[in-house]
Amino acid sequence: MTTAQRLGIDVGGTKCLGVVLDGAGEVLREHRLPTPKGPAAIIDTLVEVAEALAPFDTVGIGVPGLVTRHGVLRAAPNLVDINNFEVSALLGSRLGLTVEVDNDATCAAAAEWKVGAARGADDFVMVTLGTGIGGGIVAGGVLIRGANGFTGEIGHMIVDPGGPPCPCGRRGCWERYASGSGLGRLAREAADAGRLRRVVELAGGDVEGVRGEAVQVAAREGDVDALELVDEFCRWVALGLVNLTNLLDPALFVLGGGLAASADLYLGPIQRWFGRMLYAPELRPSPTLAFARLGQHAGAVGAALLPEVH
Amino acid sequence: MTTAQRLGIDVGGTKCLGVVLDGAGEVLREHRLPTPKGPAAIIDTLVEVAEALAPFDTVGIGVPGLVTRHGVLRAAPNLVDINNFEVSALLGSRLGLTVEVDNDATCAAAAEWKVGAARGADDFVMVTLGTGIGGGIVAGGVLIRGANGFTGEIGHMIVDPGGPPCPCGRRGCWERYASGSGLGRLAREAADAGRLRRVVELAGGDVEGVRGEAVQVAAREGDVDALELVDEFCRWVALGLVNLTNLLDPALFVLGGGLAASADLYLGPIQRWFGRMLYAPELRPSPTLAFARLGQHAGAVGAALLPEVH
Repeated sequence: MTTAQRLGIDVGGTKCLGVVLDGAGEVLREHRLPTPKGPAAIIDTLVEVAEALAPFDTVGIGVPGLVTRHGVLRAAPNLVDINNFEVSALLGSRLGLTVEVDNDATCAAAAEWKVGAARGADDFVMVTLGTGIGGGIVAGGVLIRGANGFTGEIGHMIVDPGGPPCPCGRRGCWERYASGSGLGRLAREAADAGRLRRVVELAGGDVEGVRGEAVQVAAREGDVDALELVDEFCRWVALGLVNLTNLLDPALFVLGGGLAASADLYLGPIQRWFGRMLYAPELRPSPTLAFARLGQHAGAVGAALLPEVH
Repeated sequence: MTTAQRLGIDVGGTKCLGVVLDGAGEVLREHRLPTPKGPAAIIDTLVEVAEALAPFDTVGIGVPGLVTRHGVLRAAPNLVDINNFEVSALLGSRLGLTVEVDNDATCAAAAEWKVGAARGADDFVMVTLGTGIGGGIVAGGVLIRGANGFTGEIGHMIVDPGGPPCPCGRRGCWERYASGSGLGRLAREAADAGRLRRVVELAGGDVEGVRGEAVQVAAREGDVDALELVDEFCRWVALGLVNLTNLLDPALFVLGGGLAASADLYLGPIQRWFGRMLYAPELRPSPTLAFARLGQHAGAVGAALLPEVH
C-alpha cells in the first residue's frame, strides 16, 4: 500500500485515457483526449493529460505495439508514423520524472493482477480479445518481459499454417480466428457459404459488411446459425488457451478486451471446448477462466501500476 | 560454486543413468542400470544406482512425464504402470535425504543453463527433439514451473487442428511434425506419395518401415528428395520456435534430444525458415539457435542441479 498518487495513461488508436490512482488502486481522477497523429503531437497530448491530472508522484504509459525494456515503441500498427518512438525519454524530460512504458496488454495484465480478476495469482495469463489478441504472462509471481520486452505476442501464435493471411505477413495466426476481427472473418466466410441469413440481414444485407457485432445480436436473439458460429469461434479461442496451458501451466486465464463485454455469450462455449481439448485433463486441475474486471480502464490503471511491477 | 557432491539420476524408457557432479559441474562418476517395470522396481533400481555412486550430499531425479511440484510423477507414457508415482517421498525415505524430482526436459534445461549452451542466459527455451518434443523455459533468470509444475509441454502445442492424430487424443500437435517420430511420419507420407525412393530402399523397401534415420542417411548422401524432406521438417521445427518467440521473447533456443546429434543437417534450414517466419524481424534481434552441449548426460546432470535451481 502506497500513499503516492500514481498517474497512468493508456494511448489507444483513438483516445488517450489518463487516470490517477490512490493507494488502494482506486481511480481518483480521469481525463481523456483524442490521440493525435505522429510522435511529437502524442507527447504534447500526454503532457496535457498529465497536467490536467496533477498532482502525481509516478508515471506509467501503455502503448499499442512492441515496446523495448527501455520504453521505446518500436512500431505500432494502429498509430500514425510510429518508428522507434522514444516515449520514455521524451515524456520523461518534459515531466521531469521517470516514465515507465509498456505494451497495453502487459498493462492490462498488471492491472488485473494487482487490483482485478487475477489478484494474488502467481501463474496466470492475460488474454485481450479485441481487434487483435494481446497477452501478458505472470509466471512464478513475476510479470515476465523477455529478452527485448516483447513477451506476450500471443495473437501471432500460428495455429494453422495453411490459414488466412495475417497483416504480420504470415498465415493462420491465432488472432485471424479468435479476436473480434477473427469473429467477423469467420462470419463473412459462413455468410459467403450461404449461412447466417439473420446476421447478414442485421448487417444491412451486405455480406462484406458483416462484423462480429451482428453475430452477437443474432446469437442473443437465439438465431441457430449465429449460435453455431459463436461456438466455432469459441473453439478457436479455447484452442489457443489450451496451447498456452501446455506451455505455461497457469492457474488462471483472464480474458479481456472488447469481447469481455459479452462474456455471457462466450464463457460457456469456451469452457466446454477448453475442457474437451485440454491435454491430460484427468491429471491436472483445469485452469480457471475468468473475465477481466477493469473494463475500459484496464490499460490506464495498469500503466499507473507499472512502476511497482517492473 | 559448491563443494557438495551432487547426485542426479535420469530415468529413461530403457535405462537409468546416474552421475555425481563436482563443484564445477563436471561428472566425477557415473553408473547406469536398465529401467525395470513398475514403481517399486524403479525405486529399487534408483537406490542401487545411488549406492554405486556414493558418497553424495544432494539428490535430484529426472523422469519422463508430468511431475507435480511435490515430486509426484502423475503419468509417464514411456514407463510401465506409472500412476501418481511418489518418487520424491519413496526415494527420500529410502535414502534419508530430500529428493528433488522434475521432468526430464526441465532437467535438460537446467543442465544447459547452468553448465551448457545457455550458461548465463536470463531468457531461453530448451527444446528437446526426440521421440516427442519436451521443453524447459527460463524467463527473467528463473526456471519457470507453472501452477502444477507442468510448464513446458511444448510438444503438445496444436499447430494444425486438422492434422494427424496425436496419442494425447488431439490433432496436429507440434510433435506430430517436428520430433524424430514426426520426421518419420512426414517421410512415410512422402514415400506413400511415391517420393523418397532412396529412403525407402535404405529402409529395406518397406514404406511402413521408414524412420527418420533413413532420411538422415539419404540426406547425407545428397539425395534431393531426402534433402527436401529435411527442409520441410525444419520448416515445422521453425514454426514452433517462432510461436515460442512470440510468446516468450527468448534471447536463445537450445535444441537438444536425439536430433541434436545431427545438428549439421538441421541447423541451416531451421535458421533459414526461422528467419523467414519470425514476426517483425526488422524490429528485434533474432534469438540465437544453438544445439545442446551435454548430449546424453543432459538429463542426469540437470537432475543433479535441481536442488539449486528450485
